[in-house]
Amino acid sequence: MTPSTAVSTKSSAHVPAHGGKASNGRVFNFNAGPSYLPEEVLRQIQEDIWNYKGTGLGIMEHSHRAKVYDEVIVAAEADVRAIANVPKNYRILFMTGGSSSQNFIVPTNLLKAGQTADYIVTGYWGQRSFDDAHAVAKQVDGKINLAASSADTNHSYIPSAQQTRFSPGAAYVHFTSNNTIYGTQWRNPDGSERLPEAPAGVPLVCDMCSDIYSRPTDISKFGLVYASAQKNLGTTGATIVIVRDDLVERADASLPRMLQYRTFVKDVSMPNTPPAFAIYTVGLMARWIMAQGGLVTLHARNVQKAQLVYDALDATSDFWIAHARKEDRSLMNIVFRARGTGGAGTGEALDQRFTAEAKANGMDGLAGHRAAGGMRASVYNAFPIAGCKTLAEFIVDFAKRNG
Amino acid sequence: MTPSTAVSTKSSAHVPAHGGKASNGRVFNFNAGPSYLPEEVLRQIQEDIWNYKGTGLGIMEHSHRAKVYDEVIVAAEADVRAIANVPKNYRILFMTGGSSSQNFIVPTNLLKAGQTADYIVTGYWGQRSFDDAHAVAKQVDGKINLAASSADTNHSYIPSAQQTRFSPGAAYVHFTSNNTIYGTQWRNPDGSERLPEAPAGVPLVCDMCSDIYSRPTDISKFGLVYASAQKNLGTTGATIVIVRDDLVERADASLPRMLQYRTFVKDVSMPNTPPAFAIYTVGLMARWIMAQGGLVTLHARNVQKAQLVYDALDATSDFWIAHARKEDRSLMNIVFRARGTGGAGTGEALDQRFTAEAKANGMDGLAGHRAAGGMRASVYNAFPIAGCKTLAEFIVDFAKRNG
Repeated sequence: MTPSTAVSTKSSAHVPAHGGKASNGRVFNFNAGPSYLPEEVLRQIQEDIWNYKGTGLGIMEHSHRAKVYDEVIVAAEADVRAIANVPKNYRILFMTGGSSSQNFIVPTNLLKAGQTADYIVTGYWGQRSFDDAHAVAKQVDGKINLAASSADTNHSYIPSAQQTRFSPGAAYVHFTSNNTIYGTQWRNPDGSERLPEAPAGVPLVCDMCSDIYSRPTDISKFGLVYASAQKNLGTTGATIVIVRDDLVERADASLPRMLQYRTFVKDVSMPNTPPAFAIYTVGLMARWIMAQGGLVTLHARNVQKAQLVYDALDATSDFWIAHARKEDRSLMNIVFRARGTGGAGTGEALDQRFTAEAKANGMDGLAGHRAAGGMRASVYNAFPIAGCKTLAEFIVDFAKRNG
Repeated sequence: MTPSTAVSTKSSAHVPAHGGKASNGRVFNFNAGPSYLPEEVLRQIQEDIWNYKGTGLGIMEHSHRAKVYDEVIVAAEADVRAIANVPKNYRILFMTGGSSSQNFIVPTNLLKAGQTADYIVTGYWGQRSFDDAHAVAKQVDGKINLAASSADTNHSYIPSAQQTRFSPGAAYVHFTSNNTIYGTQWRNPDGSERLPEAPAGVPLVCDMCSDIYSRPTDISKFGLVYASAQKNLGTTGATIVIVRDDLVERADASLPRMLQYRTFVKDVSMPNTPPAFAIYTVGLMARWIMAQGGLVTLHARNVQKAQLVYDALDATSDFWIAHARKEDRSLMNIVFRARGTGGAGTGEALDQRFTAEAKANGMDGLAGHRAAGGMRASVYNAFPIAGCKTLAEFIVDFAKRNG
């Protein structure tokens, strides 16, 4: 079976017909983010860009102070709140700068002189959070404690409670719920949300960048959650912060105003011109999530999608290595590589061939991050089941042809 | 002449036909930003959102690390550089957080202990810059000096060299080239760029948020220039920073990495996921500017546009007050209000009636900022001459009917 016939028998609208493209011209998008937006969302954006709801101006052209846009941002906030039933004592803020900027904004707001913040480092971005927190701690005369780390196995697992050492009375505990590069996730066996067992009263701060709203989440268990929009909840440019009221007030009020959460609370995410278009896309994605049936439905679909690919990898595990420990496997990012046994060359050469053949067959963005190597299949909320089926079959087929 | 017939004789494609809308469904957009994007740019975006250059994915869905997007950001940088002939020893960075975030990022990078930075405050945003610089100066043990201010006349003018007191050996001099709310601009009589006469060797730092690339600019005269994209150069979400190499290296390298310009230089504006879609729109606008003939052509057009409206206000100056001193009038934001003489009620009532009638006639976004009152007509790069003609005629007509 040649690579092209391996996928040419599928019947979904997504399936490549000519030149690796589906009949509607689109390919399967496995990129780690930015990634897919649902096709109906893209069509809505196309319409709204020219003339938003008959106003005579496109969505990008309306003043953020006008009634038209006010309705957009108010609805986006309300829908993001409704989807996860976010409690009343939490604010939902739309900021900028991505999760990377939250890495210094969080300690700037939450860490005071003499205090310690605990960090659980389970990947590349968690390490970044930890490093930047050090930079802030130095300025404010606080301390950063490495409560646990999975660096010993190139971040293939999530540390257990026994492997974690919390500081007494920490200002907060920071962790990364899903590790995009290494493909691990804080999860229970059924894929549901699992949290570090932080001491009572210590707020959990979570970088939820790559799995926000991909499954039910209990926001009341967190002090603060942040995520860029472009993986599961919109496009680049908007950073979503969900923060408990008492934490909003922790920061020194004499800090530059754009650095304080309270500024974004007071000015309802518009202390200046917000990333208005990106927030609008968050609103569209929020409504799309609701139309799908909400987080329970999405979670079931995301479990099914990931399972298709992991099952294919497990069925051909003499050929492939899945990076993550089985119980910590991410539902969002599936990281794997060829063992390189058999006569077909090194693992790295097989990885490259796989990625190239996949691309020729309408599966884009499968090359892994250099820190983990191999392949990474990112299958966020908007990624269709058909794409996971196609990839799963291709994984098995490739192993047969090259094993 | 009724308001609707006052504008119903125009023939441009932009002119409202029914319900205040042009035959293509669009209205004149006088908003202060976000504002117009050129129609050809909007059409291009509509196309690219679904399938960018035949790649099978929309522009928002491509990884920022993929070759497809790399070409977008490289071209955007190159075109922004080419348009103003930006010297080789300047970096062009795409950041986030708007000009408001630069208000603290600039002093964080450029002000050291014991140093003083000079600020010229000519409006609301200049005051914000000044206030936030104080917050940073307090942290780093530096000083902020108010070199000049136009607050005494509600910011109706640009201070002269004689009215300005620079500090000896200042770290930098900060000013706002165009004051969006009050409608004043640093300009020569022909509308060309005018700069504060800072002492030799002191870098000029300019918030060019509302007039960047609306006229020729000599970047070599500045140390650092910043601007949000959404007025003259794209949509919300991207902040353009043009900075001289020696200033990039001023900051303490132990600061959080997302706060240092050098991080954005080193990682070519992508230390994390950038506001990829917004940067793409900057690229489209840059190419549009080049297609128009560049900054000389745009400047001539912007002078013509503003002149049409100012001439109408001057011809009916018994009825209208233009806020800015004549020689400091902004080419971007035209701020005016009714005197309120005559029998038609107070000035404020007339302002409200004007704004409402204008809107009914397809002219949107003319209400002024509360700090200046009255009306504000923002006529950035993408605003068409036809809209200024229509407004000018409506200004004269309204004065006749209500004077």
